[in-house]
Formats: sequence, C-alpha cells, structure tokens
Amino acid sequence: MSGRATVVGCIGGGQLGRMLALAGAPLGIRMRFLDPAADACAGHVGELLVGPYDDPALLDRLAAGADAVTYEFENVPPEAARRVGALPDVRALERGQDRLVEKELFRALGIPTARFGSLEDVGVPALVKSRRLGYDGKGQRLVEAVGSIGEDELAEELVPFDRELSVIAVRSRDGETAFYPVTENEHRGGILAVSRAPAPDAPQREAEEIATRLLDELGYVGVVTVELFEVEGRLLANEFAPRVHNSGHWTIDGAVTSQFESHLRAILGLPLGETRPLGSATMVNLVGSLPPLERLLAVPGAHVHLYGKEPRPGRKLGHVTLVDADEQAVAEVVALAERAWVV
Amino acid sequence: MSGRATVVGCIGGGQLGRMLALAGAPLGIRMRFLDPAADACAGHVGELLVGPYDDPALLDRLAAGADAVTYEFENVPPEAARRVGALPDVRALERGQDRLVEKELFRALGIPTARFGSLEDVGVPALVKSRRLGYDGKGQRLVEAVGSIGEDELAEELVPFDRELSVIAVRSRDGETAFYPVTENEHRGGILAVSRAPAPDAPQREAEEIATRLLDELGYVGVVTVELFEVEGRLLANEFAPRVHNSGHWTIDGAVTSQFESHLRAILGLPLGETRPLGSATMVNLVGSLPPLERLLAVPGAHVHLYGKEPRPGRKLGHVTLVDADEQAVAEVVALAERAWVV
Repeated sequence: MSGRATVVGCIGGGQLGRMLALAGAPLGIRMRFLDPAADACAGHVGELLVGPYDDPALLDRLAAGADAVTYEFENVPPEAARRVGALPDVRALERGQDRLVEKELFRALGIPTARFGSLEDVGVPALVKSRRLGYDGKGQRLVEAVGSIGEDELAEELVPFDRELSVIAVRSRDGETAFYPVTENEHRGGILAVSRAPAPDAPQREAEEIATRLLDELGYVGVVTVELFEVEGRLLANEFAPRVHNSGHWTIDGAVTSQFESHLRAILGLPLGETRPLGSATMVNLVGSLPPLERLLAVPGAHVHLYGKEPRPGRKLGHVTLVDADEQAVAEVVALAERAWVV
Repeated sequence: MSGRATVVGCIGGGQLGRMLALAGAPLGIRMRFLDPAADACAGHVGELLVGPYDDPALLDRLAAGADAVTYEFENVPPEAARRVGALPDVRALERGQDRLVEKELFRALGIPTARFGSLEDVGVPALVKSRRLGYDGKGQRLVEAVGSIGEDELAEELVPFDRELSVIAVRSRDGETAFYPVTENEHRGGILAVSRAPAPDAPQREAEEIATRLLDELGYVGVVTVELFEVEGRLLANEFAPRVHNSGHWTIDGAVTSQFESHLRAILGLPLGETRPLGSATMVNLVGSLPPLERLLAVPGAHVHLYGKEPRPGRKLGHVTLVDADEQAVAEVVALAERAWVV
C-alpha cells in the first residue's frame, strides 16, 4: 500500500461529519466537506469547501479524486447526491426525505408502523407532521379534531408507546450486514437527551429483521438508523435516517468499532468491523449551552465529546458517554447536562 | 463556558502530535504544530507552522493565544521550550537530553540503574551510547575491549534483563498523579515491535514509586514514560521520555483515558482521567511499509492507527491494537506486521 491518503467527500460539515473525520484519520482517511457555513465544525478536522449544497462546481471539487462521497444529513438535494455518486445511494435519500414515501416503503416491506395517512384514516387525536424537512420534533403538531391537512402533511396515529428505541445497522458493498445492540432513547421536547445501550430486554432480532429488509430493498451501503416505538413488546418503525445518528454516538466509546468507522469501512469497500458493545453505555446530549468542562471531566469514566460549535438554544453542542459506570456518575452527568440544557 | 476553542501549541508535528490532536478534538482543543517538514503528519489534523524548532518568530506564533504549549519529542532545543513556557517544563527536557545527566538523576533519587560511566567503571562487554540524540537503538554500539570512549559517550553495563518494561505516568498541575499498568515491550533491532499491557506479574508498585520520585523531583506536569529493565524480579531504570510514548499507544483503545488525553488534561489544568485498562491489550507497530489495510481490518477486533506518513525503511507508519482478542487474531496481526517490516 502506498502512503497516499484515502479521501472521502462529505456533503454537510456538522458534528456527524466531524466525528466521521476523527474516526477516519486513524485509517489514513482524509475528509473534505461541503457546507454553506464557513465555521462548520467539521472544518476543524478536515478540508472545508464553503457554499450551497447544490453548487455543481463545488460538488465536482468535493468529488475530485475522492475514493467515496457520502453525506451527513438526510435533506441533501438528490441531484447533488447523484452528481457525486454518494453512498448511501440516492434511493435511500429520496425515500427518507418524504415521510409518506418512507411509511409506504415500510408498509410495502411488511414492516409494522403506526397508522398513517389522512386524519380520517388515522382518527384523532393524531400527530400531523410535515412530509419534508422535519427534525428534532420540528414540523409536528398535535391535532384533536378531524379536518383537512395540507398536501405536504401527513397524519400519524398517536402511539401509546412504552419506549423509543433505535437500531443502527451497516451494510457493506457486497451485502454483508452488521448490527449494533438496540438503543433506548429518551427525548426532551423532541430532542434526544439520553441514550442507553444495549437497551434492556430489547427485541434485538425483530429490530435486525426490520433493518435487514430495508437495507436489502435499498441495496444500501453504509450505516442506517431505524427509529422504533416499542408497544407492548412489539416494534413499530417510525422513520429511518440514511446516516450515522445521534443515538449511536455511544458506539465511539462503547463498542469495538464506532458507527462512524463502520460507515467509512462500508462505503470504502473495507471489511466491516465488530459491532460488539464493550459494556453498558449511557450517552447524554449537551444542548444549548455547555456545562463547565472541568466538571464533566471530573466525573469518573466520563468521555466528553464537544463539537466546537457556538452555543445557541436547541443546538447540539456535544455529548458525554459513560461505559459500565456507576449510577452516581451517570446521574452526575445527567444533572450537569440538564442544568445547562437550553432550548 | 463559551464556544471558544482551547488552543494547544506543540513543538514537533509527528505521529505523537497527531494523536494528541485526535484526542484533543473531542475536548474542544485545537492544536497548532511547529515542524520543519511541510508534510508533517500532524498537519492533517491541526494547524501547521513550517520552520526550524528554534525560530523565535515561529515559536512566538506557536504560543500566541495558546492555553498551553507542549512538545512531542525530547530533543527540543531547551531555549525553544523556555521561550514558549512549554510543559513539561525545561527541567525535564534538559535532564532527559543527556544520558549521563539522566542516569545521575536516577542515582541521586535512589532509583536503581545498570552501572554506567567509563568503560573502566562498567567493565566489558559494555554498551557505549552517545550521550545525546540517540533513539530507536541508534547511536549505540557493543564494545568488547576496555579502551577510551568519547566525551560525548557513555558506557553502560550490558544487563542480562528478563524483559523490557515501561511505565507511563501523569502528573497534574497541582501534583496529583495517575499511572497506567506497566507495559511489556519487545524490540526488534532497537525498534519497538510489540507492547503488551498490563504486563503479566509486573512489579506495578515498584514502577510507580520510581515514576513518582522522578515526577516530584522535576515538578513535572504532563505524561512521562520511564523505560525499565526487569532483572530477576527487580527493576532498573533505563531512561525516561518527557512525553507520550510508543509503548503507551495501547491506551487509545485499551484504557478508559488514553495517554494523549491524559497529557492534554494535565497540561491544561483539567482533572486527570481514569487510567484503568479495559482489558488485556496488545499493540503491534507497523514499521517501514504497511500491510494491506483490508487485511488488517479483517482481523476481528483490530484497531488500526495509521499516521499518514510516507513509507521509508525504519519509519514508524502506524500501529494496531487488540484488546482481549484471541491469540489467533493477535498472531495474525503480528504476522502481517512482520511481513511488511522494513528497516
């Protein structure tokens, strides 16, 4: 092997791109990002091209000499992904961008979901969501009375779920798959606050079957995340993200191979790594403002990950992971994060 | 806490600097390096100033606005370290640069060493080493007959050691210390080939006492490495390195806090992290040329770390760490590394 670096392009230069770059550097991978923000935080650890996601000249520079191109958010313009031959390929991207298409895909694959459609289909109360561009609970409202909704909206049954789970899976170029343990996720105001993995008594096999159907249907290459509701021991698929995911950040410190390394291995055609957990992990998000770093680092076993972003209400600024830590340490980190939480 | 990045300057931009930067990024630390080589591999993950180590203007730029300045090799000109107020401070650096001064320090602290001095003091056969600038077994020769040696040389007793060990310790700004488990090191032709940690049945307490005496004497801040010989269950100090060390690379994947993060925490006045090992680690160096990446990544549990350096005989290009891996996986990595080893 020559000393030439492997180059991976990435549409989007936020914290997911940043963590991809940090996972890639030890494999000799250098990353190049495209982001409209000149201060995009992935630019601290890789090359940054600044401009719109659909600029053909910038997209060509992003892909020039790259061994693979990927993206780190799901609202990438499909024509941009197509132009650079991004992985996961545009089939996954397009289906994930429209909640209705996404749910219909689940249905076609025999994957259970909450009821969805018009308010008449679903009944009230229901959640009405914009079909496109929603994230972190944005673009959602609770509707109590039957009536008409917009064409760009979708009604979903209000599911009395017992807990929210997610499964992160990876599929290689030649169709090999691997799965991380199912993760249990707690949200606050629609934003992920705490993830625990492996989720106790989770239906791991059922979750893997759901992910496998989706991956195989899409001829998928890379990491995918499927968000799930658990209702009386059964799983309903809520949505999927064609990318690494906040609920998988625990894998950096808590699994043999992180979701970031897994994604890079997959899109580069390298052997997949072990997804085995190293223990019981808890991941706590830092949102809106940061607790004092020295307080976080004083907690035994706390792995602190800051993203280098300016504080702003509702913004994910970092996370902390603990593996096989005692309950007091976990409680301390949760308390520090909650005190600094600003939305 | 504001979103302002913490900045750490580092004299030297090789793989140790690179791994410091990769460990620092998640703590919001951005690194700036000074190195004469425009292709210094730490420049891939941080800012790189190119020029001689003793250039006052460059040193001032290195230190401008930095929260701390450190170095990643022991032959930094003391006046350069002094100019930027580097940690560990210049006392450690100066003593480590001259083997005679170093051994005399060990002796003054009551730390056992092999006999050293003139050939008459030591007897023959003896190892004659240059007092300055030796590394990876360079600047050493075996002398069989008594005679005179140069003023810049030092004779050392040829110790019939049972094994080579090292201990990595860290001391905070306020004098707190922490220690990694003693590591067992195998060299090939003077270059570290394989490290195993925790070293089975190692005299951990004795090693920690040696390190503590040294750290306290030097008012040390940061990570130090003491290389040791074990002779019939007793430890002799061979030399110390005032920096993170190749024999501690296993801590990235095999300890709660890596040696790199420990060093940064210490020099920045942050709380020290846990040095507890996560299991039994084996670290294998990749020297001179690289085995095929896909072969390394196919070994279950192999954590691959490439430094982004051009292959060259005798050059350390990367390492692979396995934690609690089965013997077959370890043997496979060792075989791949040996086959590619070029000196």
